[in-house]
Amino acid sequence: MPSSRWTTWAWMLLLPGCAMGWPKQRSSATSDIRNCTISPPFLPPSVTDTSIQLNALRQRMQFYNISAYIIPATDAHMSEYIAERDARLAWISGFTGSAGTGVVTTKKAGLWTDSRYWTQAERQMDCNWELQKIVWTDSIGEWLLQEIPAGENIGLDPFLFSIDLWNSYARVLQGSSRILVPIEDNLVDLVWGTQRPLSPTSEIYLLPETFTGSTWQEKVSGIRRQMEQHSRSPTAVLLSALEETAWLFNLRGDDISYNPVFYSYALLTTSDISLFVDRSRLSAEALQSLSAQCPGPLCVQVKEYDQVRARVQTYAQGDVRVWIGTEYTTYGLYRVIPQDKLVESSYSPVMTTKAVKNDKEQTLLRAAHVRDAVAVIQYLLWLEKNVPKGSVDEFSGARYVDKLRREKEHCKGASFETISASGLNAALAHYSPSNVSSRKLSVDEMYLSDSGGQYLDGTTDITRTVHWGDPTPFQKEAYTRVLMGNIDLARLVFPSETSGRVVEAFARRALWEVGLNYGHGTGHGIGNFLSVHEWPVGFQSNNVPLVKGMFTSIEPGYYQEGEFGIRIEDVALVVEAQTKHGVGEKAYLTFEVLSLVPYDRNLIDIGFLSEDQIQYLNTYYETIRQRVGPELQRRQLEEEYEWLRRNTQPFSRGTLVAASLGTLAITSLVSALLPDRQA
Amino acid sequence: MPSSRWTTWAWMLLLPGCAMGWPKQRSSATSDIRNCTISPPFLPPSVTDTSIQLNALRQRMQFYNISAYIIPATDAHMSEYIAERDARLAWISGFTGSAGTGVVTTKKAGLWTDSRYWTQAERQMDCNWELQKIVWTDSIGEWLLQEIPAGENIGLDPFLFSIDLWNSYARVLQGSSRILVPIEDNLVDLVWGTQRPLSPTSEIYLLPETFTGSTWQEKVSGIRRQMEQHSRSPTAVLLSALEETAWLFNLRGDDISYNPVFYSYALLTTSDISLFVDRSRLSAEALQSLSAQCPGPLCVQVKEYDQVRARVQTYAQGDVRVWIGTEYTTYGLYRVIPQDKLVESSYSPVMTTKAVKNDKEQTLLRAAHVRDAVAVIQYLLWLEKNVPKGSVDEFSGARYVDKLRREKEHCKGASFETISASGLNAALAHYSPSNVSSRKLSVDEMYLSDSGGQYLDGTTDITRTVHWGDPTPFQKEAYTRVLMGNIDLARLVFPSETSGRVVEAFARRALWEVGLNYGHGTGHGIGNFLSVHEWPVGFQSNNVPLVKGMFTSIEPGYYQEGEFGIRIEDVALVVEAQTKHGVGEKAYLTFEVLSLVPYDRNLIDIGFLSEDQIQYLNTYYETIRQRVGPELQRRQLEEEYEWLRRNTQPFSRGTLVAASLGTLAITSLVSALLPDRQA
Repeated sequence: MPSSRWTTWAWMLLLPGCAMGWPKQRSSATSDIRNCTISPPFLPPSVTDTSIQLNALRQRMQFYNISAYIIPATDAHMSEYIAERDARLAWISGFTGSAGTGVVTTKKAGLWTDSRYWTQAERQMDCNWELQKIVWTDSIGEWLLQEIPAGENIGLDPFLFSIDLWNSYARVLQGSSRILVPIEDNLVDLVWGTQRPLSPTSEIYLLPETFTGSTWQEKVSGIRRQMEQHSRSPTAVLLSALEETAWLFNLRGDDISYNPVFYSYALLTTSDISLFVDRSRLSAEALQSLSAQCPGPLCVQVKEYDQVRARVQTYAQGDVRVWIGTEYTTYGLYRVIPQDKLVESSYSPVMTTKAVKNDKEQTLLRAAHVRDAVAVIQYLLWLEKNVPKGSVDEFSGARYVDKLRREKEHCKGASFETISASGLNAALAHYSPSNVSSRKLSVDEMYLSDSGGQYLDGTTDITRTVHWGDPTPFQKEAYTRVLMGNIDLARLVFPSETSGRVVEAFARRALWEVGLNYGHGTGHGIGNFLSVHEWPVGFQSNNVPLVKGMFTSIEPGYYQEGEFGIRIEDVALVVEAQTKHGVGEKAYLTFEVLSLVPYDRNLIDIGFLSEDQIQYLNTYYETIRQRVGPELQRRQLEEEYEWLRRNTQPFSRGTLVAASLGTLAITSLVSALLPDRQA
Repeated sequence: MPSSRWTTWAWMLLLPGCAMGWPKQRSSATSDIRNCTISPPFLPPSVTDTSIQLNALRQRMQFYNISAYIIPATDAHMSEYIAERDARLAWISGFTGSAGTGVVTTKKAGLWTDSRYWTQAERQMDCNWELQKIVWTDSIGEWLLQEIPAGENIGLDPFLFSIDLWNSYARVLQGSSRILVPIEDNLVDLVWGTQRPLSPTSEIYLLPETFTGSTWQEKVSGIRRQMEQHSRSPTAVLLSALEETAWLFNLRGDDISYNPVFYSYALLTTSDISLFVDRSRLSAEALQSLSAQCPGPLCVQVKEYDQVRARVQTYAQGDVRVWIGTEYTTYGLYRVIPQDKLVESSYSPVMTTKAVKNDKEQTLLRAAHVRDAVAVIQYLLWLEKNVPKGSVDEFSGARYVDKLRREKEHCKGASFETISASGLNAALAHYSPSNVSSRKLSVDEMYLSDSGGQYLDGTTDITRTVHWGDPTPFQKEAYTRVLMGNIDLARLVFPSETSGRVVEAFARRALWEVGLNYGHGTGHGIGNFLSVHEWPVGFQSNNVPLVKGMFTSIEPGYYQEGEFGIRIEDVALVVEAQTKHGVGEKAYLTFEVLSLVPYDRNLIDIGFLSEDQIQYLNTYYETIRQRVGPELQRRQLEEEYEWLRRNTQPFSRGTLVAASLGTLAITSLVSALLPDRQA
């Protein structure tokens, strides 16, 4: 699934180059489903009336003497997916998309989100809210300069903004005489009151050793080694992202749907370890694991979640240096640490270490992908049989593939809300069907299925787009070009430590060539039973350079608004490449695709593919047969096994030569075969 | 010629991904030509004894109470090429490379430069200087933290550091208790004293209207329109780069070798224009042009060069907002403007406007390239005839191609010091031969010629690599892969406003595929009778997105240390592409190559090229014939005309099919031709 993580920097660099291709008709701000100029306004039935909550918020704003209040879509851990109790933007605006920023002034309310969510926002927001179809912090800043007179205050909850984001607001408003005011009481929460969902109480459990890459003690020791080797010798690492604590301590929870994490912070010093978490939620086993080596440097002291700020502040009084990752640490925590005691990098050493999977983690993830392929192949065969009967709609399809996954060994559910989109619905990259509005699948339309599973050994994410009838030549061309992009990036050889940003255009070239493009990122890291979008791996500007052992999705697409959507997504492992020359110090890398489901033959126009692309495809299909075939047989899924064999037949080179060279080249071919006549 | 502009950011992002491929053997810091551990040390005869000047500098440092002094290789205008009087780093260290930073402490002296210059630095610096083979500001910062105790001062001339670079030093030292101290007296200049070359006195002249894209009044009005349209309504634009004033006022000088610019600043406000320059150097015609519309908003007031700081400081007292480009404005000027009166962007509007050539400027540059091609073709033919006789060396070759250019209409000389490198010398990307050490050209070695001209209508820059004998299969493969990179980037179709950084890997893919790479950037903007490296166009992270009308070089290469070097460089114009689909709001772009000299057939292994690459090459050669052929005939250069026809023969598709599909594919070809037998 395309990543929604909405950092200013990523989008600033993504949009100018890439987003214009999609969706073209909506890149101007003119059309809006809603008509707020007539009385009463015309509004879709799905909008939320936000007058009461806005009114209450404005009263609070007056009390705090602020003229504007900025409400982001994240939580205090900079999570991409958030729990219900953190869905402040959704509650105040009605808009439930995962990326966006709301700004409420005394008179207006504006919501900024990216093109994936424009239609959704118009369907969910009432006329209290302006939709701003542009996502730069700069644009919010300019709007604020217009709406807020000089000398007045703009309020933010400092625990909901990363340092980087806070700084970019500060930069935009610099010298404008508007003051950014951190307000530690969250004003939306004050208004939300008792209706706000409670804190989770479910168990936080220990991940069995079978499913972990190493013990938490080994991980902690590794991080401490990095602290020692750092030129500024940090004395502590502060961990704010929920994936960081979950990974480091081999613990899991279920505080956020689809993400097996739990609310927590950690402060890891050279001599002790504090985990800030609701102690009562830790399983006996988890507590035992954390305290097994107490007292000592490998003893985890469990402290209350709320104490993190006070503890960091106290710790920072000493002769210490605290290492933080600026992308995940909130301004609220950052500002309690004196400047000269900060050691800053974009990502904490836990985040960057987690990004590179060790051999055991790789083995675990590989295994999860075989079981996942079985589920998806079962689903594709089931669709092939049932769609022509007219008995499948988007919602029932999504439920069915979810069920197939849940039946698999080690599966704990979906890794995100399944995207199941038929026809024009697939042009919305993040569309999810509901029981209420669900389109029937048909042999006359393309269908896009983007889904993944949380297995104890790994997280998966795969998209296949299919057509059971007669696709148009343009649909086949677009699909084939998306596939070419997937292949060209997957088979690319590149030097170790190349930035993903530098190579992602290989996934777009075949589309660009004919004036097509897609408006989302090309891939994202993925975890071992953790987040489906695991930063900082990926192909955007603020991702880290690619090294051996990283996992990333590769997912080009094409979206024709009002008609159809295509995305082909695989998860791939960064591996060493064998090259003909070049035996230097640094390795060359390439990708090994781990998703093991064949593409739709009905949508591939073989004439567009190069010899090298065909060869790649045939090798990949052979790998699928070898890895998934035996698993299907073991489960006695004979029909699925036959489907697999049918759908992984090698593409014929003869067909290719005839198709790609065409009639015009026949004379040249003859010359080649008859050297006497050669030019 | 590969760009040397040495901004921290560009190199930080270039190096991790790209530089490791070259030169491999030298990427560790172990080897040094010099041996400073024995007494007396072993030193090449080419080193400069810097003891006296270092001693004098250290006395000055003591007087100013600083423990370290940082000396960059640029001037007060952030120029890449500098005048002799600004070559402070060269004078203090002996190192004459165009990119580097020196740091002198009370006991040590260190020089940081990138891999292109390591060998040169070792040959030029005595044992007073450590060579640091890493180029990040971070590394200088870490070294300073090691060498300088807390509480002590580090001095810099604020007029030799851009704001961005100053800030990155500040960031690195943040919280370390070492204080960055701006010292406005340049300490090297104080020591250099009367031996320092004087300020130039040569004439600053008006560029005739025939050679300008528009009048300076039109240019000024355009910039003022941009000021009006800017959301922060700047009241003035401050221009610091020498190319900015030269371009804006259609003036030229010769203060810096190869660059027709002159020392100056400009402050362009909504109501008046100040040009800070040595008035006595302005030609009568230039003065007349500047004052023709005095008084009034289009009257240029000429003020003394030295007054710029005082004038900006006074101006900034008022109710004003000064728009600056942070990449070219020095910290010295920046700090006299109050924060709330600054409007910052990476590049001034003059810089970004100049980057997009209008129709007339495009026509002028095209015309210059035809004359330039004639000179290079004459040179290649001359080499072909004279190298086998053993009568050409690198230096005489360079002088000859310079002479051929100078004879051409509108030519004012070379646009940079000609690179003429045979055999292993070509593995040094910036090698220039001297009268003293010059290798003889031979049919047994590859030869690389990188040269360009300053014509009144345009600046050129072209590299051709040739071999007159029997290249090895590896040399042919490497050359062909460099060519494939050049072609793949040149023919790429991409959306308007794509960043160059995102597409430059297309120039590397064919090399990466077999484990090869090159360690320099892939291209740079170029001016109309201005700088051969014209920022901010190019393929690095801090370049601006590509739009129609920009010119850039495309110059992949490959360097085998101790053996040979390959570079193939063309100048290309960004043009609109015609695409099969996609008729959206934004255009798709591609490149039109304007350098018009065929590549070396002797080094092309046609078997590596795809059908599309061959087709592209044949079309390009047809264009060369059409544009340069008539010019050669007009000049009655019959032998050159025949050479051109011979060297632009289309490559045969028949040969290709046989070569690229090879024997294994013959059966498939037969199947294709005989459909009955098809699989």
